Amino acid sequence: MKGFPKSMSELIKEFGKLPGVGPKSAQRLAFFLLKSDERFAKELSEAIINVKKNVKSCKICNNLSDAEICEICQNVSRDKAVICVVERPGNVISIEKMGQYHGLYHVLLGALSPIDGIGPKDIKLHDLFQRVKKEKIKEVIIATDSNTEGEATALYTVKLLKSLPVKVTRIASGIPVGANLEYADQATLQKAFRGRIKA
Amino acid sequence: MKGFPKSMSELIKEFGKLPGVGPKSAQRLAFFLLKSDERFAKELSEAIINVKKNVKSCKICNNLSDAEICEICQNVSRDKAVICVVERPGNVISIEKMGQYHGLYHVLLGALSPIDGIGPKDIKLHDLFQRVKKEKIKEVIIATDSNTEGEATALYTVKLLKSLPVKVTRIASGIPVGANLEYADQATLQKAFRGRIKA
Repeated sequence: MKGFPKSMSELIKEFGKLPGVGPKSAQRLAFFLLKSDERFAKELSEAIINVKKNVKSCKICNNLSDAEICEICQNVSRDKAVICVVERPGNVISIEKMGQYHGLYHVLLGALSPIDGIGPKDIKLHDLFQRVKKEKIKEVIIATDSNTEGEATALYTVKLLKSLPVKVTRIASGIPVGANLEYADQATLQKAFRGRIKA
Repeated sequence: MKGFPKSMSELIKEFGKLPGVGPKSAQRLAFFLLKSDERFAKELSEAIINVKKNVKSCKICNNLSDAEICEICQNVSRDKAVICVVERPGNVISIEKMGQYHGLYHVLLGALSPIDGIGPKDIKLHDLFQRVKKEKIKEVIIATDSNTEGEATALYTVKLLKSLPVKVTRIASGIPVGANLEYADQATLQKAFRGRIKA
């Protein structure tokens, strides 16, 4: 980059590879780093390396973990009879933030998508079947996305677990809390009506 | 952070310290890094460390530099008789991108701002005086910002260099190229009229 010393150009180039960081932002981040104290640079740099080094998939639920078995699977106070099925590790975070769910998880690491050539063998569905079969699972709560791939995955999961003595539920679709009815699309409204509960 | 392994929480925390990066963006960046190949993580991490280690101020012009003397000051093909005075290293980049200026620079590393207690001794004005005095400088082009601090700095610089046999100029203020006249503020319009040139 014209006018920049090489170390700055390099850093701007690397920052620019991050999602949502354009050339101007990359420059701004680099200048910020240049002005910040050495300790921050060291900590950020180490955090980047550590994530690649330490984070792996939990052997049981495929959630992100620093250890072989993730904190949630290791936690003795969690309800080991309930498994919530999600598509991505990020979904676990959202549900944990809610703070109301105390069971275990199963991260599929994807969703069925015939159009992209992703079939049942490409996601962690077999592992889920084995878990439910071997352990004393009472309920499987399906919390895949509410889009085509998520729905397809949910339907397939229900079918897959049918032969096992386990209750399978799906989290509700409907009007988001705080939303106006007139802004809800037809499909959401249909789901909301179908899923109505006694008031 | 709830549900995240420690390495991820650490990285999200560090990313979140960057300007313009909120909790959601920090999370997105961390997930991106987790998915990207090891090489990128290594290169980004090193680039961060190298900037803090290598980048210093050029001994002559105070521009950012990996070496004692920056590339521009070292470049034999630049016109050593002209110095462009700017406030920040980032300004050098803008002018270099324009590609029309081939002289040297002098970065003040600030601007006069009595309100913030920044006087002539707090910025690199004395160095500029010495440079102009000792070297065969024919012209000093003042390109400080077009705001109160920048204007005050420009005025002071003109006064400072008055005793020396050097031509001092100031880059033009006026209507930005491509802008509509009706959107120009009064001050800009005044400057544009005062600075009018023969068509």
